[in-house]
Amino acid sequence: MPILNKDMTLCISLAARPSNIGTRFHNYLYEQLGLNFVYKAFAPVDLADAVRGIRGLGIRGTAVSMPYKEDVIALVDKLDASAAAIDSVNTIVNDDGVLTAYNTDYLAIERLLREHQVPASSTVLLQGSGGMAKAVAAALRDAGFSAVTVIARNERTGRALAELYGFEWLPSTQGASAELLINVTPLGMQGADAEVLAFPQQAIDAAKIVFDVVALPAETPLIKAARDAGKQVISGAEVIAIQAEEQFVLYTGVRPSAELVREASEFSRA
Amino acid sequence: MPILNKDMTLCISLAARPSNIGTRFHNYLYEQLGLNFVYKAFAPVDLADAVRGIRGLGIRGTAVSMPYKEDVIALVDKLDASAAAIDSVNTIVNDDGVLTAYNTDYLAIERLLREHQVPASSTVLLQGSGGMAKAVAAALRDAGFSAVTVIARNERTGRALAELYGFEWLPSTQGASAELLINVTPLGMQGADAEVLAFPQQAIDAAKIVFDVVALPAETPLIKAARDAGKQVISGAEVIAIQAEEQFVLYTGVRPSAELVREASEFSRA
Repeated sequence: MPILNKDMTLCISLAARPSNIGTRFHNYLYEQLGLNFVYKAFAPVDLADAVRGIRGLGIRGTAVSMPYKEDVIALVDKLDASAAAIDSVNTIVNDDGVLTAYNTDYLAIERLLREHQVPASSTVLLQGSGGMAKAVAAALRDAGFSAVTVIARNERTGRALAELYGFEWLPSTQGASAELLINVTPLGMQGADAEVLAFPQQAIDAAKIVFDVVALPAETPLIKAARDAGKQVISGAEVIAIQAEEQFVLYTGVRPSAELVREASEFSRA
Repeated sequence: MPILNKDMTLCISLAARPSNIGTRFHNYLYEQLGLNFVYKAFAPVDLADAVRGIRGLGIRGTAVSMPYKEDVIALVDKLDASAAAIDSVNTIVNDDGVLTAYNTDYLAIERLLREHQVPASSTVLLQGSGGMAKAVAAALRDAGFSAVTVIARNERTGRALAELYGFEWLPSTQGASAELLINVTPLGMQGADAEVLAFPQQAIDAAKIVFDVVALPAETPLIKAARDAGKQVISGAEVIAIQAEEQFVLYTGVRPSAELVREASEFSRA
């Protein structure tokens, strides 16, 4: 039984179609670490009213997902550099009524490139042009990557993203290759595109590292194909776990051990 | 571990100094009845923002306590008769964005007078002139009681309450007596006035029924003295359980059994 108590600090998420992952990840860690916090996902009826609710109810932390990541900027008090770098927010921290917005997706990508020791000299194909692709592009640029090609069917958004960070643009993966392949499209995600391989097999064979930001399922067709081809892989499950860990630290001030984050991540996806 | 899930319907309370009772009462019943609901108390930073949060986050039910019971009237869409009768709200129900305000304290008093079969012809001393005293006075009047004396040291609020419902006013319990004694002051409540007997012993001895609306502790000095004198008693614990039961029904559409309400009430106070 969830024996909640009145003094629990509430953290929430705001998404049009929430998943269960954040709710399970954070509550698992609260329990393991003995923190008097509780976490619950919301599909808000109205974003501005929801943010007023964050202030009015004293909600400590808020994860922000699609389609609110840009719209929420006008509703907070401060933008951390991680959010300002990409004009996109996935985290709000409430310090006594002052709302500061962060982007822990950016922080997670930055940390994963560092932890997986990806050389900044690598050539990169970055497929996608949405909000998460922007986080990846900014993290690549800020980590010193310059030989990056943005691939997006939509010329307007693809070119805009590439130009913003000084990269090239291509409309298709057809015939393209690089040392680091990054997929930030829904290709391979649960649903309509579940069976789609986000890059051609030849590109996978020619790459050294394959990074699929898609988090559901953990093993996308791209990740499976890259493993089968003996490539180094970075998965969306890692992104989601690290971005959630960084949110957890921002909300609670406590950094859980890597082991505990791994457990919480597994629990959250079970 | 509180294994919350994203689809849980949230109900909350708003009070300057929340107790744990509502959180425990409602969560106990949700668990026992297998309802995918979760309940948490809040001390709001700002009432208007909190109510916007109810709309924005789609919070289903909200208990309203001191000092928000009147101020919240301007923030909702509709007033149920129970709230309109006393211009005081202790419950907000959110039906797809339409906020309707109720007063289940009024409903509970009305139900307790009926269930304890208190004759409407009884003479009554009603001590207190705050919001809850108003709920009691309105329930007495609407149940047909007419021989009611409001006792309040504050002449202005005491007279105003008495006149509103066609009752008499007295400044003190000194020398007063009646068949039904009702205490709606903090006398006997946990804290500074814990040891105070809300009515003189002579009044208790002369009464038939003693009703103490103070809910913490369940056994106030007044309730103990009334039991010792062999009187019929109605306790604040009953008020709080029944008003919470009525809130529960409004939020969930499910009426728990009397046995389950008793269990939840005991659990909530443990």
